[in-house]
Amino acid sequence: MGTELSEEERGGERLALGVAARLSRYLQVLTQARKMGKETISSQELSEYTHVNPTQIRRDLSGFGRFGKRGVGYNVDGLVTAIRDILRTAGQHNIGLFGAGNLGKAIASSDMFADHGFRVVALFDSDPAKVGEKVGPHEVRHADSLERAVVEDEIVVAVLAVPAAAAQPLADRLVDAGVRIIFNYSETLLQVPPEVTVHTSSPAVDLLYALYFYLT
Amino acid sequence: MGTELSEEERGGERLALGVAARLSRYLQVLTQARKMGKETISSQELSEYTHVNPTQIRRDLSGFGRFGKRGVGYNVDGLVTAIRDILRTAGQHNIGLFGAGNLGKAIASSDMFADHGFRVVALFDSDPAKVGEKVGPHEVRHADSLERAVVEDEIVVAVLAVPAAAAQPLADRLVDAGVRIIFNYSETLLQVPPEVTVHTSSPAVDLLYALYFYLT
Repeated sequence: MGTELSEEERGGERLALGVAARLSRYLQVLTQARKMGKETISSQELSEYTHVNPTQIRRDLSGFGRFGKRGVGYNVDGLVTAIRDILRTAGQHNIGLFGAGNLGKAIASSDMFADHGFRVVALFDSDPAKVGEKVGPHEVRHADSLERAVVEDEIVVAVLAVPAAAAQPLADRLVDAGVRIIFNYSETLLQVPPEVTVHTSSPAVDLLYALYFYLT
Repeated sequence: MGTELSEEERGGERLALGVAARLSRYLQVLTQARKMGKETISSQELSEYTHVNPTQIRRDLSGFGRFGKRGVGYNVDGLVTAIRDILRTAGQHNIGLFGAGNLGKAIASSDMFADHGFRVVALFDSDPAKVGEKVGPHEVRHADSLERAVVEDEIVVAVLAVPAAAAQPLADRLVDAGVRIIFNYSETLLQVPPEVTVHTSSPAVDLLYALYFYLT
């Protein structure tokens, strides 16, 4: 009780979706706070930015052995490390980024992934006119070379910022090349074998979600 | 039991974060499915793309009166409408988009927001060199005119795709102008009054979250 997570929340050997989702939200805010040089944060502040109520936040974190100091809050650095440990995602993960359009360029030029241990090691496009173009620290490569790049650059995650029609054929090649995690920004439902994880990101649905919390 | 949501999941007058988050995930996948012309979808398929287990999905949806047909699944169109109703976010919402860099351009050129009832009605930048530039159907306006635009264009949501240093001063002006929902892509923790909802989106943290489900 109190500091314990329920059986359902622990979800057996892996965290339940709800817990993992809340921890991810805490991590988003903590990363921003760290970037701004903030050393401590209260459960109340975390609550304002995550829409999770402060009691739930304290319960989640104390369940993992993290306790805030009364009147001070949680140590930001320590909490970032702890959550990344809980999510077992510490370490370095290499990303292959596909699509050098506006979205691909925004991702390639940003350090948002680097802050979380992801490194964009290669940027691809299938348009010959874009190949060779410099985007941030990257030079756009032709997507024809992806199989070799997956092996040589040890790419574990593919981020797809390509048009809908290009997504499935590209996913097929990536899966054949050994990629097991695909982060899909295209508006296509990808068909992949069960050993491959597809994650869909939709800012518009995130926005609906934010709107819901505003309206209620 | 069974089809009922627990007291905690109902969370009183508003949905608990966990339920709202799951519904948002279903909606992401359903929207992609609809775009591809798919008419029905099974709880098993929804599960593969959302990482929510099929039993939980059936429980969530039957709790809101939606039942799939055995061997056929759920009607995609009907479920999209039902979830938007549950999230009370049906209708049209006008967006003011700030920042005409790569990310801002990607958002402005995409129809992803339109699919969910959001309409980008104005695109702003503070760089005079960008003002007047055409981006998709938009002409970039100077951010100086935002106060008038908020009123005239009935902007209810501001999307911030601006550098970290620009975000807080911009948020202050938006709040003064009457905007109550800010969708923040900048790497800054915004300070806003309690009546304003800030939503933070971080693709990198989403990716960590996907990685977690792959690793476990």
